[in-house]
Amino acid sequence: MFAAPVNRLISELARLPGVGQRTAQRLAFHILRVSDEEALALADAIREVKETVGHCEVCFNLAVGPRCNICLDERRDGGVICVVEEPSDVIPIERTHEFSGRYHVLGGALSPIDGVDPEDLHIEELMRRLGAGEVRELVVATNSTTTGEATALYLADQLRERAPGVTVTRLASGLPVGADLEYADEVTLGRAFRSRHTL
Amino acid sequence: MFAAPVNRLISELARLPGVGQRTAQRLAFHILRVSDEEALALADAIREVKETVGHCEVCFNLAVGPRCNICLDERRDGGVICVVEEPSDVIPIERTHEFSGRYHVLGGALSPIDGVDPEDLHIEELMRRLGAGEVRELVVATNSTTTGEATALYLADQLRERAPGVTVTRLASGLPVGADLEYADEVTLGRAFRSRHTL
Repeated sequence: MFAAPVNRLISELARLPGVGQRTAQRLAFHILRVSDEEALALADAIREVKETVGHCEVCFNLAVGPRCNICLDERRDGGVICVVEEPSDVIPIERTHEFSGRYHVLGGALSPIDGVDPEDLHIEELMRRLGAGEVRELVVATNSTTTGEATALYLADQLRERAPGVTVTRLASGLPVGADLEYADEVTLGRAFRSRHTL
Repeated sequence: MFAAPVNRLISELARLPGVGQRTAQRLAFHILRVSDEEALALADAIREVKETVGHCEVCFNLAVGPRCNICLDERRDGGVICVVEEPSDVIPIERTHEFSGRYHVLGGALSPIDGVDPEDLHIEELMRRLGAGEVRELVVATNSTTTGEATALYLADQLRERAPGVTVTRLASGLPVGADLEYADEVTLGRAFRSRHTL
């Protein structure tokens, strides 16, 4: 029903996460309606990001150039490393302003079913960073999902053996701030109970 | 917090309709994660659509080349023209398989507040098409909004004067198929009442 280039744009847009056929159509018609400048600015931004943004050689966070801004920042505490699954996990943590250490991005989580084994993640590079002896604490901030938890347990295990001097911590589980008990799932609520503290 | 090219991509994505800052971030990280091929396929599709897709010189629907597929299709009935606001309005109508005539895309709806006057829409071109004498009926399928209704009334008015031989019709208003009376707004329900028919 559409001209071929329109169909192509719709199917490319529909590959974006959370974008179904309908939304892709709506976005495509928006792109057709706006000025050439506005549309090409988006096309160029996609191209530019793929051409210029790579991964930090130290922590595998996103970086323009060999090292990311956080690894280049001398004020960050090299004694604490926060381990996350993806570069996008760095942002919410930075937003809390609670963490002044450095990061290590694993590039995913262990998932034998999906064929993701330890050697597919940046775990050896993490061990090498710990080997330098500067790191006191490793905060494991992988997701609170089955694969994220499995990865955390695997790392804790490995580190007990290979870097016994490093304290391994995990982000607390519990009720989200502002949450209604009524709407909390039982696993979260159960954990919040087990981790209760005196006031 | 992000590298400049990432920020640029996020702000370009956030200009898309229905895409807020959070969604734009999520999309940007998706684009960073996928292969260069997949990302550049999207960039190229945007570029291609802007370079190759224009408007049909007859009906102002989207077209690759001077005329759209519908205007080029000899089997379509040239005696009935359906008037819509935007090229995107053609698709839902085509999907019904109820209409075998041709289209005329106005390029918007009359809205004096937003500075959209008759001369900003493809109304003169419509009058010229009617002037050829082939058209028996004009189905006004502008949106069921204030501006769409105003445009329909304006067109009906103009046509009574300038093309008295052409029957002007309007899509029926009423309850959506499958809708609950309980959730229908009173304007829709009122129209459905006024337009009731014997069974």
